[in-house]
Amino acid sequence: MRYELYYWPTIQGRGEFVRLALEEIGADYDDVARGDGGMAAMQRLLDGRTTPHASFAPPFLKAGRLLIGQTANILLYLGEQHGLAPATASGRLWVHQLQLTIADLVAEIHDTHHPVASGLYYHDQRDEAARRSADFLASRAPKFLAYFERILENRDNPRHYLTGAAISYADLSLFQVVVGLQYAFPRTMGKILPKYRLVASLAERVSARPRIVAYLASERRIPFNQDGIFRHYDELDHAFP
Amino acid sequence: MRYELYYWPTIQGRGEFVRLALEEIGADYDDVARGDGGMAAMQRLLDGRTTPHASFAPPFLKAGRLLIGQTANILLYLGEQHGLAPATASGRLWVHQLQLTIADLVAEIHDTHHPVASGLYYHDQRDEAARRSADFLASRAPKFLAYFERILENRDNPRHYLTGAAISYADLSLFQVVVGLQYAFPRTMGKILPKYRLVASLAERVSARPRIVAYLASERRIPFNQDGIFRHYDELDHAFP
Repeated sequence: MRYELYYWPTIQGRGEFVRLALEEIGADYDDVARGDGGMAAMQRLLDGRTTPHASFAPPFLKAGRLLIGQTANILLYLGEQHGLAPATASGRLWVHQLQLTIADLVAEIHDTHHPVASGLYYHDQRDEAARRSADFLASRAPKFLAYFERILENRDNPRHYLTGAAISYADLSLFQVVVGLQYAFPRTMGKILPKYRLVASLAERVSARPRIVAYLASERRIPFNQDGIFRHYDELDHAFP
Repeated sequence: MRYELYYWPTIQGRGEFVRLALEEIGADYDDVARGDGGMAAMQRLLDGRTTPHASFAPPFLKAGRLLIGQTANILLYLGEQHGLAPATASGRLWVHQLQLTIADLVAEIHDTHHPVASGLYYHDQRDEAARRSADFLASRAPKFLAYFERILENRDNPRHYLTGAAISYADLSLFQVVVGLQYAFPRTMGKILPKYRLVASLAERVSARPRIVAYLASERRIPFNQDGIFRHYDELDHAFP
């Protein structure tokens, strides 16, 4: 089956978590809004009056007759279809729990530069962003990273991937968060990431997987930029003590 | 099976979305942290080094040998076990998509009073909260409410509950959001909710279900207060034009 991914064409954003999963499974897919007429097609499918199962916002995935929205929900589907999640019901709930925790972290990362309103420019909320970033870098990021580190330290875990010996969509997403944070906050991540060595080595392991290597080197991977979730503002990186 | 819900004992918070589902299905459950020694038990299960499938934060649910964290993930499980979700795979993805959209809205509601840091007091971020609330009430809340209204208007929908003729966990959660917003922003909701009459009538329909009526009248329902997600600060309610 050829999947159709609908997401903003110029940013990694939340769509990137889906792209990474599609790439890792070697899926046949269109990144629709990056093609001719794709944006108009995406807008049409966002109308909940006429489209059953319309999304509140991109990304969403067309899979045959299914239309699936919300990043973690798309990954729930892909994970089950393509072995990117454990085979047991218990394991599938666990990887989804981890993904939802990553989604919470991603929302907090977004709000480091947009703490007042996503509809306002950054320069209209710079002061608030500095305060929020200081708290995020001093408290929240370390709390999340320590959580994932503890998961990887758990004696029941074979210490390879988050849910065991096999890669899951949550590992791909945690990789994306780590490299995204390194783009946004290089100074701070240089200081704090070494404390979470299992998380850091997990991200390296993901980045070395053949299909991920090929994807990251391709034009399909949109570079990090100042419009996505992960943005580099030097003054925010310096909000960390 | 007797479920064990672990959540902060003095607030509705995110745990309330789970409590409403447990009540609607007539589940046998303990709200563990509200009982003797419950807080210590909850803290022990939050240690990811020793507890397999430990959560980043409450709520989490113990269901026999399963330990399930993240509100939407708990509801995914309960919905499937107890008929609080459609029976088809497509329908289950759809209700989960709606729930994750509600979760995004809930996170934005929380940040109306805590836009800088959840670890700081409200009075340390009052100015930022006023700016964030103004945007939330003028743009974000209407956008979310309009989305759910369109879902209920969709011609393929029998206009009873979000996913069709039968109630789902997303309906319970949307009810909670509506009454929570009415508690936090009574003035603003009095102005804007009438525009979303299908959402408003859905919330009324949920509130009239026998088990929900009994629950809301019981001591098991913790009243809204100034420590939860939905808080009433008069100045924030007046941030709306």
